[in-house]
Amino acid sequence: MKPLENDTFLRACLRQPTEYTPVWLMRQAGRYLPEYRATRARAGSFLALCKSPELATEVTLQPLERFPLDAAILFSDILTVPDAMGLGLYFADGEGPKFERPLRDEAVIKALAVPDMAKLRYVFDAVSSIRSALDGRVPLIGFSGSPFTLACYMIEGGGSDSFSRVKTMLYDRPDLLHHILDINAQAVAAYLNEQIAAGAQAVQLFDTWGGTLAAGKYQEFSLAYMRRVISLLQREAEGRRVPVIVFTKGGGLWLEDIADCGCDVVGLDWTVSLVDAQRRIGGKVALQGNLDPNALFASPEAIEREVANLLEQTAKAGHVFNLGHGISQFTDPEHVAALVDAVHRRHQFCTAT
Amino acid sequence: MKPLENDTFLRACLRQPTEYTPVWLMRQAGRYLPEYRATRARAGSFLALCKSPELATEVTLQPLERFPLDAAILFSDILTVPDAMGLGLYFADGEGPKFERPLRDEAVIKALAVPDMAKLRYVFDAVSSIRSALDGRVPLIGFSGSPFTLACYMIEGGGSDSFSRVKTMLYDRPDLLHHILDINAQAVAAYLNEQIAAGAQAVQLFDTWGGTLAAGKYQEFSLAYMRRVISLLQREAEGRRVPVIVFTKGGGLWLEDIADCGCDVVGLDWTVSLVDAQRRIGGKVALQGNLDPNALFASPEAIEREVANLLEQTAKAGHVFNLGHGISQFTDPEHVAALVDAVHRRHQFCTAT
Repeated sequence: MKPLENDTFLRACLRQPTEYTPVWLMRQAGRYLPEYRATRARAGSFLALCKSPELATEVTLQPLERFPLDAAILFSDILTVPDAMGLGLYFADGEGPKFERPLRDEAVIKALAVPDMAKLRYVFDAVSSIRSALDGRVPLIGFSGSPFTLACYMIEGGGSDSFSRVKTMLYDRPDLLHHILDINAQAVAAYLNEQIAAGAQAVQLFDTWGGTLAAGKYQEFSLAYMRRVISLLQREAEGRRVPVIVFTKGGGLWLEDIADCGCDVVGLDWTVSLVDAQRRIGGKVALQGNLDPNALFASPEAIEREVANLLEQTAKAGHVFNLGHGISQFTDPEHVAALVDAVHRRHQFCTAT
Repeated sequence: MKPLENDTFLRACLRQPTEYTPVWLMRQAGRYLPEYRATRARAGSFLALCKSPELATEVTLQPLERFPLDAAILFSDILTVPDAMGLGLYFADGEGPKFERPLRDEAVIKALAVPDMAKLRYVFDAVSSIRSALDGRVPLIGFSGSPFTLACYMIEGGGSDSFSRVKTMLYDRPDLLHHILDINAQAVAAYLNEQIAAGAQAVQLFDTWGGTLAAGKYQEFSLAYMRRVISLLQREAEGRRVPVIVFTKGGGLWLEDIADCGCDVVGLDWTVSLVDAQRRIGGKVALQGNLDPNALFASPEAIEREVANLLEQTAKAGHVFNLGHGISQFTDPEHVAALVDAVHRRHQFCTAT
């Protein structure tokens, strides 16, 4: 492997000094890019795109061709692991992910098992292929859904506004939910370790739905299992530490607990003040975030103003710039260019004065 | 007017001692009750139900016939004020509220004005009628959407997942959004003052969407205008203080700021720990909340466990039990009975030991 040309992101994750604030964007490879839509059309379906290492490599690199981003992130679906468990992932037109066989029956839940990682070979092959294609330009981030977030989809059978089935199980049969989460945690750890073995240089746990849990239940049903995953992870590869990022959307109230779960970086949504986050956990972990993705609908001038406002709040070390959630498909790529440029230029301004 | 038989709720709002923890439930009059569905069917439409003081009185009292709740809340829609402003409220089948003429044009926004309160007579008539029907049993709560929450619907033209139009205006044309919010604040204050004059004994500002704002933007675009509303309110009626409750869903990070806006009570969603909330703002305001409404899908035994868990966390004075958001239409009324009973019984247990 070629040595990294740009390791700014990895250093920021470990709170080491950097020359500027590194930036990547959640869902940076995606529908807002016309070249992504073209590849997606060629693939025939979203799942076919995810399952082809060649096409996944192509779309992973697309945003890097346009913008000087400081990291790449594996293009894949969040639900590959439960699919490998046999739940039957499919995408209904315009409806998001669904499972043919959601977890509804106690016997089925008790029979749930960590899947054979060979079924996820296509993901690890994509990781290797992306690493080759990147050729040392920037680091590659691997990822997985958190055990709780996966359980939400596995139990509901798809997305949900209220997660009423998950919540019912949580309050009525916590033993069953704990069993699912235990299996998920083992599976996610194995999945991320294979990604790391294949070349992922950092990993992120996406806890998209942990923030829907009540105080106390979050700690018990989501955070505890992310802690478990992290305890099982290979933390070094190619002679470097592999930083772990935990992102719980809506987790701002629980930052101290999250910072204590073994991760190197805590991802923040836009409701959290960076000043407060730094005061609360900045001495312990790096911070990632946290522009409202909807700010990208505004003019480049407004975007620049918001970026400046956020960067004024952060310390020199230990901040990775990102959005507070995934980029919207309706975002103008020119506005993304303005964002990345503003983050990088802000640095030049800082070092010039 | 007959003197109040049960003023437990009002006393708890003012952090005065009470014999037990009072309880009411957001959306307690609603679709989960078969008798509500029957009245709604008779009315012909949701708006016809809201606009008939007689039918609004009927549905407001329905939950009180079933459960020994400690307060009634006016049955009405959150969007009556912008409807009176001329935006043309309607309900598309199964789609929630929409406006025929959303705020899209600068000239239209500049022409927006506080509506003639005579157009909202049906609401104030409902308040008077409900007060008569209650006959002093429990206090009546009036309410309004917050200026920002109303603006969300007025600008988007209906509900939204991302509030991209509102956010675009916020970042690109904050002057226009501030203008709308200024008019909304004046209108909401006039609206609540008329409700108080007609007999509302407490009022709640529902800030359903303030929690979607970024740190700092919440204070500027939502909280500042709730503070403005509260500064304009009549705070005494019938020789008693009229408590003001502010509920920002997803506002847990900003409790100190909210407690400082002039309100008597801060509503909490279920992500906030009551222990933490008490530590942070319990010395200043009363707390209202905060069971996850989805916990009502669980068994009565599980509901009782969760109630006990919450009530153990609170001080003896200054807590109004509620859900952390509106009750789901799919809730079993028997489970609501179990909840109210558990809250009230918990008290008996406490005083017995």
